[in-house]
Amino acid sequence: MSASSRILNLAVIPGDGIGQEVVAQGLKVLGAVLPPDVKLETTEYDFGAKRYHATGETLTDADVEALKRHDAILLGAIGDPSVPSGVLERGFLLKLRFLFDHHVNLRPSKLLPGVATPLKGQPEIDFIVVREGTEGPYTGNGGSIRTGTPHEVATEVSVNTAFGVERVVRDAFARAQARPRKKLTLVHKNNVLAYAGHLWTNVFHKVAKEFPEVTTDYIHVDAATIYLVTDPGRFDVIVTDNLFGDIITDLAAAVSGGIGVAASGNINPSGEFPSMFEPVHGSAPDIAGQGKADPSATVLSVALLLRHLGYEPEAARIETAVSADLAERGESVRTTEQIGDALAVRVAG
Amino acid sequence: MSASSRILNLAVIPGDGIGQEVVAQGLKVLGAVLPPDVKLETTEYDFGAKRYHATGETLTDADVEALKRHDAILLGAIGDPSVPSGVLERGFLLKLRFLFDHHVNLRPSKLLPGVATPLKGQPEIDFIVVREGTEGPYTGNGGSIRTGTPHEVATEVSVNTAFGVERVVRDAFARAQARPRKKLTLVHKNNVLAYAGHLWTNVFHKVAKEFPEVTTDYIHVDAATIYLVTDPGRFDVIVTDNLFGDIITDLAAAVSGGIGVAASGNINPSGEFPSMFEPVHGSAPDIAGQGKADPSATVLSVALLLRHLGYEPEAARIETAVSADLAERGESVRTTEQIGDALAVRVAG
Ligand SMILES: CC(C)[C@H](C(=O)O)[C@@H](O)C(=O)O
Ligand SMILES: CC(C)[C@H](C(=O)O)[C@@H](O)C(=O)O
Repeated sequence: MSASSRILNLAVIPGDGIGQEVVAQGLKVLGAVLPPDVKLETTEYDFGAKRYHATGETLTDADVEALKRHDAILLGAIGDPSVPSGVLERGFLLKLRFLFDHHVNLRPSKLLPGVATPLKGQPEIDFIVVREGTEGPYTGNGGSIRTGTPHEVATEVSVNTAFGVERVVRDAFARAQARPRKKLTLVHKNNVLAYAGHLWTNVFHKVAKEFPEVTTDYIHVDAATIYLVTDPGRFDVIVTDNLFGDIITDLAAAVSGGIGVAASGNINPSGEFPSMFEPVHGSAPDIAGQGKADPSATVLSVALLLRHLGYEPEAARIETAVSADLAERGESVRTTEQIGDALAVRVAG
Repeated sequence: MSASSRILNLAVIPGDGIGQEVVAQGLKVLGAVLPPDVKLETTEYDFGAKRYHATGETLTDADVEALKRHDAILLGAIGDPSVPSGVLERGFLLKLRFLFDHHVNLRPSKLLPGVATPLKGQPEIDFIVVREGTEGPYTGNGGSIRTGTPHEVATEVSVNTAFGVERVVRDAFARAQARPRKKLTLVHKNNVLAYAGHLWTNVFHKVAKEFPEVTTDYIHVDAATIYLVTDPGRFDVIVTDNLFGDIITDLAAAVSGGIGVAASGNINPSGEFPSMFEPVHGSAPDIAGQGKADPSATVLSVALLLRHLGYEPEAARIETAVSADLAERGESVRTTEQIGDALAVRVAG
């Protein structure tokens, strides 16, 4: 359903740990920002550790069919120490990214005024990472032989296709083109991962010809981590593969205010399947249920969701509200709910 | 030849860019620190961009045989923009690591007093990364089909063996055991790279039983980059795979004073083949030949080399000298040679 139909049919997955608390605030702000003629319809799903323990299920075929019927998905967090590492990640999060072809994994990093960074001198940070979401070493290809013996061999295969690389590179160029600085940096490791590196680099140069206004740049992933702490201002838009994107966006979140304010979108630009929006922080079981979690990352993920569905003014209002809230926050300690309330007031105002 | 024979037979590879300048200072300090009864014999090799352009060679079989005859190798830097990306990296650096079975890639990170870090509040940083050097996605396994067409598929295969993982994990445990804090952190991505992750995690737990005094810890590589900027003091020894190690050691170098002071060793602990020691910084062609390069990283690599060959007091003297030099350096701008001279005086004194 498109924005013009004025119904927003949302799948809501609070998930585990602080997921519940932050999603509640995300929905509160969403309700407050939407114009009165837009009807918000939400359906809550119980994916996560609890359901896994009760049923052994992470995401069934019926679940997938149900999720398909929504305009978008808002996710809190999935993951709990009681579940073996990887089960929910691969059985739910990655499964959805692959099934719904979320090939544009969008992760903006902006150091907002008043927000603390571990870096000296409060540098200007304002870039987005376009991480490929459906290929690379994330495909689950690989295996092991003689498992558990002294002769075990375990492999992981990074799979990269011209089709998959080109569509995400083109998406990144288009995003760079739309920004004032119009600069796109390819991050890879083409001096070592020569086959994949060659493909990424070739496609990057080919697509660059369609965007003559965009300045291009290439940096090895190891060097990129250096620049992210010594000169993050050099980045405008970054495009990179699934694994490198995973790594550098956590670092990017850390330097631009922490994962408390880092939003992300798992986007299917064609709209064939619903896109999913989630804060980058995990379920943080250590602080769950205490009203301590910062809902800003979820609220900013709601902004990405709205922008994706065509609600640009509403998305911008949310971003302005979060920015103002953070700037005025100072040392004050507020509960998850208090921050959500304050943001809801701001976006409505 | 062992340290007790009192001949140190060194292969010296200045290489490209600033490699020449920094290696000269490394040798100066080495000459100054060695006891009078140790005879230093050096043979210089001309590997790098110049030789590649002149002959098309990066490292011949005869070169390899010649290098084998040395106790150790001191490398400046290899790499020049005039050579296509990957040619010297794979044809020389990685080739040597594989041929000489440099499976322990050792990278210490210590923020020395007086040294600037991009991080706020001058945190205490003192850890070492033990990066696997002969497996993972660095093996060159992989390929591409329909190359250059819209239907290209390019793969990279990460190869991990119980043999390869166990020896590097055991080396890391032994290093952790020998340090005051006795803590070892495994960095991987076992929730996504499940086959390799399972192998690494299993072997890690198995070897841990041999080192009951060592506290162990596991962190996903993405989260590790966050801790490296928000809480680097939590790390003592890190063990990780070849690619993750490449990425996090550049970040580690950046936060602990920059690549100007980051040393590394490509170590074959069995001594079957010579180990190679090199600064982490590259050839830095932009400042080459201007006497601007900081030789500290090379000098610290010489310390690692000496420690590897059993010259522990001399290694420690170099580290103390570099530490003191950096602490007193302040804003003073000195040439590469002046820093080398100062360090040579300190280690001799
Ligand atoms: C939980 C995990 C599977 C996931 C990933 O690796 O993509 C997470 O780290 C992320 O970045 O969204
Ligand atoms: C130059 C390159 C092949 C090398 C690597 O990736 O290992 C370098 O980055 C390093 O860390 O020593």
